[in-house]
Amino acid sequence: MSILIQQTTILTMQEAEAPFTGDIRIEGSQIVQIASHIMPQPEDEVIDGRNKLAMPGLVNAHQHSPMSLLRGFSDDLKLMDWLERKMLPAEARMTPEDIYWGAKLGIAEMIRSGTTAFADMYIHMNEIAEAVTETGIRASLTRGMVFMEDDGGRRLQEAIDLVQRWSGKANGRITTMYGPHSPYTCPMEPLREVVAMAVQDEIPLHIHLAETKEEVEKIRSRYDMTPTEYLEESGMFERAHVLLAHGVHLNPQDISRLKGMRGGVAHNPVSNLKLGCGIAPVEAMIFEGITVGIGTDGAGSATTLDMFEEIKVACWLQKLDYGDPTRLPARQVLDMATRGSAKLLSLQNEVGMLAPGYKADLILIDLAKPHLQPIHNVESLLAYSVNGADVHTTIVDGQILMQDRKLLTIDEDELYREVNTRAKRIVEGV
Amino acid sequence: MSILIQQTTILTMQEAEAPFTGDIRIEGSQIVQIASHIMPQPEDEVIDGRNKLAMPGLVNAHQHSPMSLLRGFSDDLKLMDWLERKMLPAEARMTPEDIYWGAKLGIAEMIRSGTTAFADMYIHMNEIAEAVTETGIRASLTRGMVFMEDDGGRRLQEAIDLVQRWSGKANGRITTMYGPHSPYTCPMEPLREVVAMAVQDEIPLHIHLAETKEEVEKIRSRYDMTPTEYLEESGMFERAHVLLAHGVHLNPQDISRLKGMRGGVAHNPVSNLKLGCGIAPVEAMIFEGITVGIGTDGAGSATTLDMFEEIKVACWLQKLDYGDPTRLPARQVLDMATRGSAKLLSLQNEVGMLAPGYKADLILIDLAKPHLQPIHNVESLLAYSVNGADVHTTIVDGQILMQDRKLLTIDEDELYREVNTRAKRIVEGV
Repeated sequence: MSILIQQTTILTMQEAEAPFTGDIRIEGSQIVQIASHIMPQPEDEVIDGRNKLAMPGLVNAHQHSPMSLLRGFSDDLKLMDWLERKMLPAEARMTPEDIYWGAKLGIAEMIRSGTTAFADMYIHMNEIAEAVTETGIRASLTRGMVFMEDDGGRRLQEAIDLVQRWSGKANGRITTMYGPHSPYTCPMEPLREVVAMAVQDEIPLHIHLAETKEEVEKIRSRYDMTPTEYLEESGMFERAHVLLAHGVHLNPQDISRLKGMRGGVAHNPVSNLKLGCGIAPVEAMIFEGITVGIGTDGAGSATTLDMFEEIKVACWLQKLDYGDPTRLPARQVLDMATRGSAKLLSLQNEVGMLAPGYKADLILIDLAKPHLQPIHNVESLLAYSVNGADVHTTIVDGQILMQDRKLLTIDEDELYREVNTRAKRIVEGV
Repeated sequence: MSILIQQTTILTMQEAEAPFTGDIRIEGSQIVQIASHIMPQPEDEVIDGRNKLAMPGLVNAHQHSPMSLLRGFSDDLKLMDWLERKMLPAEARMTPEDIYWGAKLGIAEMIRSGTTAFADMYIHMNEIAEAVTETGIRASLTRGMVFMEDDGGRRLQEAIDLVQRWSGKANGRITTMYGPHSPYTCPMEPLREVVAMAVQDEIPLHIHLAETKEEVEKIRSRYDMTPTEYLEESGMFERAHVLLAHGVHLNPQDISRLKGMRGGVAHNPVSNLKLGCGIAPVEAMIFEGITVGIGTDGAGSATTLDMFEEIKVACWLQKLDYGDPTRLPARQVLDMATRGSAKLLSLQNEVGMLAPGYKADLILIDLAKPHLQPIHNVESLLAYSVNGADVHTTIVDGQILMQDRKLLTIDEDELYREVNTRAKRIVEGV
């Protein structure tokens, strides 16, 4: 299968390259050519790109997709009420089939809002992998492992099974990570064990870090360290590729400890705001050369999975934090949501940029909207004005997953019926 | 003309009334009946409301609509660079016809994102009034008056002309206010003069207040007062209905001074973030019984005019400010964006609620979207997940202005051509 996108505004996200008008040709799963004019081949599916902008699909660097089933179920509550009185009891009622449908709901939203790849940490990962396979999106899947309870061993086995069964599947769209859940749920011994596995299997790690002040206090009282020091003690920064989620409460010494790490930090600004966690030191991390990507976190906290929303909020929060509107400018945040997140998923040589040889993971934005006119500066519009609903076409691995706002791999009516029935059952009595 | 909306989820925003399923009947410019089932009349235009939610149209309490022409023109700059190097020179090049098209662009975006009324402060108000008249939206128009320069008298005359010529026009959709620009651009003498005019003509006032720290310092050094004290000195809080825009830097004494005022404060969270101004003390004001509405400010700073975005951000910022996710819950912020803003525009007996006798200013939200499913709690979805693009139908004064995302009173192709040509000319050489 081949696709030719004609006469569109192209933002490749290659270094400082400015947007230009041209054509993009896709063969199989890859971009094969980008040029001002490309001769159509007889077999090409031709897409008219006028009044549109082509850019790399967004990469959601931290997510819990099945939590979409709990969207709006427990807003405006204290963090511990949210977690213990609402999220955990509801999650405990979720069946593997619920997980499948919750993941599919999350994926439907992601495709519709321009996300082409995501990092997911949850349970029942086989079901999520099935949803990824069927829907055509790209994902890095992680079985989250809490080691404070009795069945840490079962979790570890499921994590190993996920890696062995699913790595490289779905034409390579599925990759995997090992997911020790967080400093406060993983004692040092099993944590070091997982680091050793990650090194041996050459599999990245995905872990929460310093999301709340309470976490920092807990780790301080338990180990007399910061959460970052604690993870450093495990050797993970030196030995493995690590995706750190959140990184809200980092002091300057913590940030120094992350310098030179492979992987980097997934910033989740909306979730951090909505749960009242605080503002991550994004500019300080970038200043130290640490890669920062962007994620949404689960819809249980963030409510939506719209990465364009996260992009806006990321910029705003740095401006607020410094009282300085020049902080985190448009181009830099777009880089975070594409190339930055791609690097966190260890996919920087495949996605996050438009270039020949890269995977055909890209989106077309419809610019013929009042809030995207006039066009003074496309990057400013993308950072501050575009939202997920402006995505017209979503392509992953050379396959069109959404065209003119219609999902081609998901039956939306069936999806809404399933998720409403299941959601109702899950929260009943919680 | 009469309209019957059938079997939709209705959120009236009357006090604590919960959403319910029912029908809404509109005759002429008014809502005449809301009930679980209403018999259709032969002349009714029937709208199928299934899988949709009807709510009062949002009221944008502070705006500069023609600045939509400068959207994305000067992002990521210091406030004074933004204002003096970019905005003011560009604005100086705008012709009355540019203002007309800029306003129309803003109105197109507002109708598409569910705003049915707005308060506007700008120049060349005749052209904005024409755009309001033609497009069918509702507006409270204000000629902004800076009194530091020579032609303050001309501005005052234009403000009087606006009030005399346009109040009550367009079937009552146009109302007017007097707009002394701000404490730092209005010496006490002309300010008192305008207050006296407002009292005599029974016209509300619309004025900026305490947007930046620099303003607070300036007024302190000039008058040894806070900006709020300065306005209080003019007698406006006691004598007139006042719409205060921003109110970011208010101390507890300032907030006490506003207690019992008619009107209230328009909160503009996105603009405040984007320009690095800070977080307004919204919860503290509400606690004191001060009405707080929501506005977008101009697209030159906020970039978009999507009130649903402002709603989200308003909630997030209070949660961040207090480190407490229970602050500014969903229902309260929806109240601010409807009834609260309506009160600021002195339209609380006409719009901001769905009820018989109220103006038929309402919107239908399309709930059949992945990010709005499953439906645990409609108010949470409206506050945290809906965005402007989810608005399916917009009705103002009983006239359908948008149906199934199509604007019925604005030619979008013509609009985009005009604004791009004009925008290019305006910023050339700036």
